[in-house]
Amino acid sequence: MIDWSAHAASRTRRLKPSAIREILKLTQTGDVISFAGGLPAPELFPVAEIEDATRRVLAREGASALQYSTTEGHAALREWVAARHSGAGTVSVPDAGSAGVSGAGSHGVPGVGPAGASGTGAAAEVDGSWVQIVSGAQQGLDLVAKCYLDPGDTVVVAAPTYPGALRAFDPYEVRYRAVDTDGDGFVVESLEAALAAGAKLIYVIPTFDNPSGVSLNLERRHAVIELARRYGVPILEDNPYGELRFDGDELPHLFDLAPEQVIHVGTFSKTMVPGLRLGWLVATPDALAPVRHAKQAADLHTSTLAQMVAVEVAGDGFRDEHLLKIRDHYRSRRDLMLQALERHLGAGCRWTRPEGGMFIWLTVPDGLDTMELAREAVDAGVAYVPGHAFYPDGGGANGLRLSYSVATPEQIESGVAILGQLLRSTPGSE
Amino acid sequence: MIDWSAHAASRTRRLKPSAIREILKLTQTGDVISFAGGLPAPELFPVAEIEDATRRVLAREGASALQYSTTEGHAALREWVAARHSGAGTVSVPDAGSAGVSGAGSHGVPGVGPAGASGTGAAAEVDGSWVQIVSGAQQGLDLVAKCYLDPGDTVVVAAPTYPGALRAFDPYEVRYRAVDTDGDGFVVESLEAALAAGAKLIYVIPTFDNPSGVSLNLERRHAVIELARRYGVPILEDNPYGELRFDGDELPHLFDLAPEQVIHVGTFSKTMVPGLRLGWLVATPDALAPVRHAKQAADLHTSTLAQMVAVEVAGDGFRDEHLLKIRDHYRSRRDLMLQALERHLGAGCRWTRPEGGMFIWLTVPDGLDTMELAREAVDAGVAYVPGHAFYPDGGGANGLRLSYSVATPEQIESGVAILGQLLRSTPGSE
Repeated sequence: MIDWSAHAASRTRRLKPSAIREILKLTQTGDVISFAGGLPAPELFPVAEIEDATRRVLAREGASALQYSTTEGHAALREWVAARHSGAGTVSVPDAGSAGVSGAGSHGVPGVGPAGASGTGAAAEVDGSWVQIVSGAQQGLDLVAKCYLDPGDTVVVAAPTYPGALRAFDPYEVRYRAVDTDGDGFVVESLEAALAAGAKLIYVIPTFDNPSGVSLNLERRHAVIELARRYGVPILEDNPYGELRFDGDELPHLFDLAPEQVIHVGTFSKTMVPGLRLGWLVATPDALAPVRHAKQAADLHTSTLAQMVAVEVAGDGFRDEHLLKIRDHYRSRRDLMLQALERHLGAGCRWTRPEGGMFIWLTVPDGLDTMELAREAVDAGVAYVPGHAFYPDGGGANGLRLSYSVATPEQIESGVAILGQLLRSTPGSE
Repeated sequence: MIDWSAHAASRTRRLKPSAIREILKLTQTGDVISFAGGLPAPELFPVAEIEDATRRVLAREGASALQYSTTEGHAALREWVAARHSGAGTVSVPDAGSAGVSGAGSHGVPGVGPAGASGTGAAAEVDGSWVQIVSGAQQGLDLVAKCYLDPGDTVVVAAPTYPGALRAFDPYEVRYRAVDTDGDGFVVESLEAALAAGAKLIYVIPTFDNPSGVSLNLERRHAVIELARRYGVPILEDNPYGELRFDGDELPHLFDLAPEQVIHVGTFSKTMVPGLRLGWLVATPDALAPVRHAKQAADLHTSTLAQMVAVEVAGDGFRDEHLLKIRDHYRSRRDLMLQALERHLGAGCRWTRPEGGMFIWLTVPDGLDTMELAREAVDAGVAYVPGHAFYPDGGGANGLRLSYSVATPEQIESGVAILGQLLRSTPGSE
């Protein structure tokens, strides 16, 4: 008999199941209203469009759609992704506080070029060679970690941050340095202190962060880039939610500001469907070269059919219309949840007011432990993810994440009411 | 500017592109007959069945097919895989040389049980908990390596062996010990010497090996299990081609003989289509536990839609019929290539006569270097993969791999004729 656990590699000691998935299991029994998962609303999935696209792709090029394909990804999809990032590096340094970028749909106005880094070069020619297709954004995080993180390296992350990223980095036996955040993302002084202490990579969700819902404002985006350049640390920019903007001005990606410094991660999971498992990395060909080899070693390539179907659906103008529809849907859910929080929560609670995405971060009175409360909440009929799950080194006891993405209006109203009652009735709250 | 290569992790120094893919690029220019790739024949793809299945799945359960799903895989697909392995551990020890196993389609007769390891327990209850769905067999190799191999560990492999496996293991900074093989797979004495020197994992394709086409005979399968048990080394059994048997008796999987000792890797890539990227691992739940966590960290889960479509296609009896059809097709190609080799190759050449799969291994006269000849061969109009690509530590200069899977009958005849002429005209051959 093999004792498999004795046989395991050292890095497996760092592997652990997702805390969120454990919470989700609790919600599958009984009539629990779940604000825990970050799933996209399935009623928004373009099922008919995906079926049509599949039929067209198989009729037109069935054999190639079902054959082995290139590791870098389907050319048409890579070009589609690249076109959405062309002009990177041309975003100008803003006047104090002003947005200073061009309108929705286009990232960039002439200015700083990628070749010149902090200089005044031309816009980056972002073409397909700047794109690596991956099997969901999660694989992008894994491959970048595999290529750029040695055991003992330090990854700078926000506190709180996305636990799936920590799970992707963990097996590479890294350490974390948590940066303080406020309603505008990274606190710059805290980030500088983290970088000064030595770091190999900055991981950040600059727009509609998971779990906090907040975005780095434009001034801070420039500050983050400036610090990353000064300390020579690359940035892994995760952007699952950026296109789900409900209000406020569009902000440039960190990649747009400094394409030489950033690996940008995108995905169809939140704007089309997650079940096709499609994401992409955008970065200089230099940065992607080892990632491509790692991808080949990890799974040869991403499903050809899925890539062809996605670009067929996304490419014909349908997607812009679809984005408007899903933004409206999630905006109304966010509004309802913010209103319910106003109505039902005590004065000791604070929460974020995101301009997009799927999440609100709720801070409960000091002395409460949202991890201890979670079971009680499920018994009372509502589920959330305790703040603890989002902190790499402990913390977050008085925070929790609420998702409004899949709950109905009625569930949002009654779930928040239950939560408010629970928080008021718990010893330790005011 | 980030110097990405200076920033790379130590393990990236081990990442290299596939030598086979480099050769394949050469064949894309001009009228080269390619025996280089190991692609399945696209004219055999069940395109219409996949389209029908997609339509049915999306109509019946579109929202779940396109939503996030469980890391372990779609339940119906896991059960389908498990059913094909139930009764593992019940294959009896053979009389000397006799097959001693039950007929096609069923692996196993009562005998040694998995719980009792080398004892006399009951058959293993292989259910869905013994199955992990992966995004192609290549991901299975990567995840097993990630969970079970530390830097410096030794992996025992056949010489020659599948280079994709070496590429999957490489980033975990392992060493290789190459075991001699003959027409029946591993030479037992050489395997024992390798294990005696210390090893962490045995990697083997026991049936219709890539690249040699040979299979471990039954006696050697038992010997391999016996040695693996004695030295306490697990076996990673890769089985992409096992169902492509043209003649000869079916052999039990190593997993059937010793389910407690083996992680078995299967795939739809060679028997249905590769483009869906679907494979599976079968092993004890103990062995799979860390793999599941690693899979979650690596890409959350495999495409739900692809899994549902595959089980829809495979589950309705279509697959058995389809297997007969593709076996006939590849059998006729193998026959043609063996006949052409007889006709066109000189007396100094030897080659394997596989009973299934996609590959023939050709040994050319000593003194020839198939790597040096490869460019000349492409110029003359034929491509193969030089033997060197299949050896972890050098060697294979006078070997090469021929694939008969995608060539037409005419291409097989003329491609082998060109090869024969080239070999006869090259200094160094007799």
